[in-house]
Amino acid sequence: MEQKILTEKTISVVVDNTTGVLARVSNLFSRRGYNIESLAVGITEDPALSRITLIVRCDSRMLEQICAQLEKLVCVHKVKVLSDSSKVMRELVMIKVSAPPAKRSEIIEIANIFRARVIDLTPTTLTLEVTGEDGKTTALLDMIRDYGIIELARTGLVALDRGSSNINE
Amino acid sequence: MEQKILTEKTISVVVDNTTGVLARVSNLFSRRGYNIESLAVGITEDPALSRITLIVRCDSRMLEQICAQLEKLVCVHKVKVLSDSSKVMRELVMIKVSAPPAKRSEIIEIANIFRARVIDLTPTTLTLEVTGEDGKTTALLDMIRDYGIIELARTGLVALDRGSSNINE
Repeated sequence: MEQKILTEKTISVVVDNTTGVLARVSNLFSRRGYNIESLAVGITEDPALSRITLIVRCDSRMLEQICAQLEKLVCVHKVKVLSDSSKVMRELVMIKVSAPPAKRSEIIEIANIFRARVIDLTPTTLTLEVTGEDGKTTALLDMIRDYGIIELARTGLVALDRGSSNINE
Repeated sequence: MEQKILTEKTISVVVDNTTGVLARVSNLFSRRGYNIESLAVGITEDPALSRITLIVRCDSRMLEQICAQLEKLVCVHKVKVLSDSSKVMRELVMIKVSAPPAKRSEIIEIANIFRARVIDLTPTTLTLEVTGEDGKTTALLDMIRDYGIIELARTGLVALDRGSSNINE
């Protein structure tokens, strides 16, 4: 049997901003049993269109199939696999961490190193906002886990090609 | 006929991090014709669970129905409607803008005011990363639209309750 090497691929998909589009796209993945590692969706400059950024673990054959299936959907305008070496990727993570007064400055010091911002404060907690690639946000989480993470919300990764081109080129 | 007042509601949903969960959640909305204004999904501190943040325009009756339907799904662990007055919300927006050398410092000045960060640069373009609520990102986009937006990727909004509680309390 042929060995399949699965790698993380980033796919940008421009779709109609209408009811049911996200259901159609996510059904396509679930019917084939492909797990989506990360998904982010937001409107584009044209409010009639949304852009979905998908991270999928797949081999080159699966990637081809996914793109071909996405392109068949009438709600899909454009599908582009972003280059592994030439893209900027970011995710936003909000973290509420246990921070009694005696620990507060330690946590703020760590936050500053990771360029995280404090966006809420109570006598016993701090809420941080941090952006970055997976590696950076994971490193910050590793540093503050021991203080006690109360809750966490992540947006999923978005990505753009480096350089001056856009998705239609 | 009773007048329906539609307002934007923020719903946090903790779900299993498995294939098909996003399809089940988004199908629930599309079957009923409810349009999702914004959706963001990311894993939580427990890698077996994901957290979906949904913004939906609805009246109080629709909101009740949505929550009841979500709670019926076996993949759903927790549903919480975040309070309008007491939450922190953030979205990440990446913007590639046309920026020839003569315009570059003007755009960087605007970016600094909005605490946006420059994350890529070419001789003719700049790519910015900005986080904030809808109002702030819209204001930045309004300021730089005339320079020429080449492409744009948004994550959708994520939200946490202010204060020290978590979604299970």
